[in-house]
Amino acid sequence: MEKKKVTRCCYSLCLLTSVGLNIYFVSNQYLKSEWKINQNKLSWSQEAAAEAEAVALISCSGHGRAYLDGLSDFVDGKPFCECNTCYGGHDCSIFSTDCAADVDSGDPLFLEPFWMQRRAASLIVIVVAGWHRMSYTFYDHSFVSQELENHIRRVHSIARNAITKGKYIIFGGGSTQLLGAAVYALSMNLSSPAKRVAVCPCIPLYKSQTDFFQNTNFEYEGDSSLLKNSSKTKTNIIEFVTSPNNPDGNLREAVLKGASVRAIYDHAYYWPHFTAIPSPANEDIMIFTISKLTGHAGSRFGWAFVKDEDVYQNMQKYISVAEMGISREAQLRALKLMKAILQGNGTDIFDYAYKKMSDRWKKLSQIVSLSKRFTLQEIPPQFCNFFEKVRGPSPAYAWLKCEREEDTNCNSVLRAANIIGRAGSIFNVGDRHVRLSLLKSDDDFNLLLHHLKKLVVTEEDDARTM
Amino acid sequence: MEKKKVTRCCYSLCLLTSVGLNIYFVSNQYLKSEWKINQNKLSWSQEAAAEAEAVALISCSGHGRAYLDGLSDFVDGKPFCECNTCYGGHDCSIFSTDCAADVDSGDPLFLEPFWMQRRAASLIVIVVAGWHRMSYTFYDHSFVSQELENHIRRVHSIARNAITKGKYIIFGGGSTQLLGAAVYALSMNLSSPAKRVAVCPCIPLYKSQTDFFQNTNFEYEGDSSLLKNSSKTKTNIIEFVTSPNNPDGNLREAVLKGASVRAIYDHAYYWPHFTAIPSPANEDIMIFTISKLTGHAGSRFGWAFVKDEDVYQNMQKYISVAEMGISREAQLRALKLMKAILQGNGTDIFDYAYKKMSDRWKKLSQIVSLSKRFTLQEIPPQFCNFFEKVRGPSPAYAWLKCEREEDTNCNSVLRAANIIGRAGSIFNVGDRHVRLSLLKSDDDFNLLLHHLKKLVVTEEDDARTM
Repeated sequence: MEKKKVTRCCYSLCLLTSVGLNIYFVSNQYLKSEWKINQNKLSWSQEAAAEAEAVALISCSGHGRAYLDGLSDFVDGKPFCECNTCYGGHDCSIFSTDCAADVDSGDPLFLEPFWMQRRAASLIVIVVAGWHRMSYTFYDHSFVSQELENHIRRVHSIARNAITKGKYIIFGGGSTQLLGAAVYALSMNLSSPAKRVAVCPCIPLYKSQTDFFQNTNFEYEGDSSLLKNSSKTKTNIIEFVTSPNNPDGNLREAVLKGASVRAIYDHAYYWPHFTAIPSPANEDIMIFTISKLTGHAGSRFGWAFVKDEDVYQNMQKYISVAEMGISREAQLRALKLMKAILQGNGTDIFDYAYKKMSDRWKKLSQIVSLSKRFTLQEIPPQFCNFFEKVRGPSPAYAWLKCEREEDTNCNSVLRAANIIGRAGSIFNVGDRHVRLSLLKSDDDFNLLLHHLKKLVVTEEDDARTM
Repeated sequence: MEKKKVTRCCYSLCLLTSVGLNIYFVSNQYLKSEWKINQNKLSWSQEAAAEAEAVALISCSGHGRAYLDGLSDFVDGKPFCECNTCYGGHDCSIFSTDCAADVDSGDPLFLEPFWMQRRAASLIVIVVAGWHRMSYTFYDHSFVSQELENHIRRVHSIARNAITKGKYIIFGGGSTQLLGAAVYALSMNLSSPAKRVAVCPCIPLYKSQTDFFQNTNFEYEGDSSLLKNSSKTKTNIIEFVTSPNNPDGNLREAVLKGASVRAIYDHAYYWPHFTAIPSPANEDIMIFTISKLTGHAGSRFGWAFVKDEDVYQNMQKYISVAEMGISREAQLRALKLMKAILQGNGTDIFDYAYKKMSDRWKKLSQIVSLSKRFTLQEIPPQFCNFFEKVRGPSPAYAWLKCEREEDTNCNSVLRAANIIGRAGSIFNVGDRHVRLSLLKSDDDFNLLLHHLKKLVVTEEDDARTM
């Protein structure tokens, strides 16, 4: 009898626990009340969200990552790891010891860990339903998300790097497309073709766009310095001013003045990440890109602030004729990223990026300082409007110079030491210089340090054997 | 004793059921053997997914929709409804009775209900993590998602509208950008500027791109027919062939032949939605766009198939110089949409779109058939390679003609009757014709029918009073 009682008691306890568990599961899944939906009651987005999380969990040993739209296993559809340069194997765990450090491109992967560390923050995720913004235009018949515009202006006011009030905004396919649009807008309706110039070293895009588009309204003249004080300043001139400059990181101002001169300021790198901000920029045409602010180069999203209404209208016309505005998905993502930046006091990304770039610069400088063969550009400490103090350099690129007389092709010298840089001639100056990108992944940067150190350490031996 | 037995039996049954349920919940939530994550265990994507679902549930009375990136209420952040034309109020429930039917643009919102009806299908949702594809390039150093390329080719093989084997593929910012790229590629390295021509009525983009870009390599000549049999066919000629044609929906072939003539086929509308597919297209340069396949005009995503390697390389160069490839977010969304199309036997979207467009055409034709004042273009029934039978017309646009001698400006006649069309002169022909878009939302289309019916019904009275 006693045994039976115990058994019944046991039964009841089990039943209670079990029913309790069921109540928990049911309530956990089906209850909640504001306009925002209960997160446990997801329906159509659930499977896609689960898939995205599963992909994010695929281990690539910290030397790669798997993507939703990557090539995948034929059997279970699991995407393969896409490994960083010099890493391989199904989980990117195999390092190729003789692999070159590829620091050629300005791929801004240095910010990838910033976003990965914020994995838990739902704020950086975009979820796009099948019917999201199918139309050619937004509600106000424009190609521009007003919400995104507002958020971009707020990010500038926190970074204290530009005066945006009283200026029109235009969205483009990266700063690349906006540069093209600005040149077209400035060179339309002129009596004679406008000369396009830039102080070099300067990025090759200015020349390559002119060469490729072969427009009747403009031609590429070369270095602005050549035109300074020359009679040509009476002709129509468009001066590109990249500030801070790519490749050398120096802050720049237009060198040419006059009624027939118009400047386009490429401010891609004018963020606390890469430079002191002496004062907020306030030029007539200023171009920025998400690529160098958040690191999302793949989104192809940039914006320009323009003071003059006619120039603004013509730039808009260019974007419209070229491709009828910028992808809604890219704009939604940019909005999410801006919102993420603005969280808290809005300084996280700038603190993180400055620390990282400054750290990289210090490490690199230290190695180069041991060398007599190589030197780096000098960037003096300067007061920064954002940090409200004098701060050291943290440039996007190292502009390395080979000092030995015989090293006329500095890029070849580095190439022989397993370092892939970008030759000075590409920036319209001599090959004594090489640009080394400091923007890439930690793997790329560490490999650069490794190979450079080896090169510097063996420098004296090399000199002796020559 | 008997009672106790029954009670015990009852207990056991309850316990068994309950434990069974426990096992179901647990297994449903925590056990799974494949790599995909359990959908009830979402972490970082959950909040964003819930937000997207909540926005989708905001009621806009079927005459509008709220978007994640729409302007929102200051207090609770709830996005406002964006109403269809002629509807207003906070939930789009107020209809403006004297409102004009705006059937000017080719905004393909007719497919919005198709995607909304598939709300439950997770397959059409994209979830993008903060660190998704930040790089400028894909793993193979290209700007093109290989997965997307594969899926696009499969969609064509189901639609049976193009032979894609042995052809290169290029992605662009809509067909707009690809048209520009193709013209540049075909007119590079020629001894004399290429003439760009098209048989009209034809879309104004061909002319506006040439006028705007003012390239030294090409100029706009006008109507291809004028060049036929003329001596000019010895000069370099690029003929645009829009097939089916915008605005009249007729299938087209290049009219000019010869070694110096190259054709660019704009096949934006060459889908079973809008035309019979007599046979798969197999031209040297064929341009398509997602805008007219899935209705996602806002994504700015198109693709071109190109036979010749040099032309392909130059088109790629154009996209690269213009904006360094197409947004990763737009490519991911296009991939999801292609996957959704390919689900099941892959014919759903074509069945739906054909039915809808054919239905719209029938309704419109019926009204116009009652009129002596207006006529529509004729599109004969034709055998369709996709439906494997003869099928009737379902064009994207009505090409309406005013037959009365005095109605020299047909657009004004319609405008007076509260219908906003696009004037024939925009398509480089006389203003006796007007293009009416049949691609827009149900609200726009129904309003068009309403106003047109009223116009036709009062036709005889009008004639009498004149």
